[in-house]
Amino acid sequence: MAVVTKEIMISTKGFSDLQNITPLVEDFVGGLPFSEGSINVFVPGSTAGITTIEFEPGATKDLQEAFERLIPQADNYRHNLRWGDGNGFSHVRAAILKASLTIPFASSALLLGTWQQIVIMDFDNKGRNRRIILQAIG
Amino acid sequence: MAVVTKEIMISTKGFSDLQNITPLVEDFVGGLPFSEGSINVFVPGSTAGITTIEFEPGATKDLQEAFERLIPQADNYRHNLRWGDGNGFSHVRAAILKASLTIPFASSALLLGTWQQIVIMDFDNKGRNRRIILQAIG
Amino acid sequence: MAVVTKEIMISTKGFSDLQNITPLVEDFVGGLPFSEGSINVFVPGSTAGITTIEFEPGATKDLQEAFERLIPQADNYRHNLRWGDGNGFSHVRAAILKASLTIPFASSALLLGTWQQIVIMDFDNKGRNRRIILQAIG
Repeated sequence: MAVVTKEIMISTKGFSDLQNITPLVEDFVGGLPFSEGSINVFVPGSTAGITTIEFEPGATKDLQEAFERLIPQADNYRHNLRWGDGNGFSHVRAAILKASLTIPFASSALLLGTWQQIVIMDFDNKGRNRRIILQAIG
Repeated sequence: MAVVTKEIMISTKGFSDLQNITPLVEDFVGGLPFSEGSINVFVPGSTAGITTIEFEPGATKDLQEAFERLIPQADNYRHNLRWGDGNGFSHVRAAILKASLTIPFASSALLLGTWQQIVIMDFDNKGRNRRIILQAIG
Repeated sequence: MAVVTKEIMISTKGFSDLQNITPLVEDFVGGLPFSEGSINVFVPGSTAGITTIEFEPGATKDLQEAFERLIPQADNYRHNLRWGDGNGFSHVRAAILKASLTIPFASSALLLGTWQQIVIMDFDNKGRNRRIILQAIG
């Protein structure tokens, strides 16, 4: 048993931009000194989340529109009144989607469904260079 | 320290069907060669999620109705236009609930609350035989 | 590699009360016999959840108001009809936010963003003394 921690960087456009990071996680798993265990994918920061989705333009747009309908960008947010950075909606969306996801792997392969991809969803109101932590235990 | 990975199969009805998988997870924990650690429960696939709930017919129906109100089946989803399989709502719901949950155990018992049960929620628009991955590290 | 499990107690006010538990998790990490690994933060019970947020009064109030708008306390819940304890809204909110969060640490420090804090959100309709499980593997 061992733990391996790696940091990757992803460039995002904000405004619920979804980026498929599955290939980067697969590369990490393929290079580990063990073949069975779990990966924690964690985004440091308060305005982005991690989940899985079938990464095709219809489903990703549907998810983006659902967040806009449920937690609209243009509502009045107290965070905006206090800080003036206009990303109150980003904080609420990120707290609900959450910054962490754990995925099992075996035989050096992620145990994802056929069409299931790991994504970062960046809710901020500007593009960001995002640090993402990949941590394997196995 | 060791890692143990097991696959179980659950038959679901889709349409937000909730199945209590706690007894299966407890059986798995009871049979492990170690008594303290964590279980990751992961559903491969893009139209189901894992969470906990008090598994009584009122609360489970409330959760199903909340998802129907927040992310209605009958809305227009771009995924449906592209793929014609009519389960755009399932993808959005599953991406928000997420496919993974980690639960600690000690003395070979899950550290759940008295009424707290582990469930799979299948959002697809048809019944499915679902693979679920249980992975213990401890 | 080892696993360390600790229970902490938090007093909450219910009604979406948010408590910042980051200092308690940091203390736990600082006292571990290993410096790299992951912490699972888990709340036993069906009416509370764990997430991260920038813990300032604007953003936390925004999150509380979003839950009230999306899953209103005053709606008709079947759980209330069956059990009469009036916390049907609490169960639905907790099942969506989820009871578990995993955070990586390295060099004995949590890999959180600068303003990102770990919180328990207690959705129950009364104050509670909440048990929270912290489990480290590393």
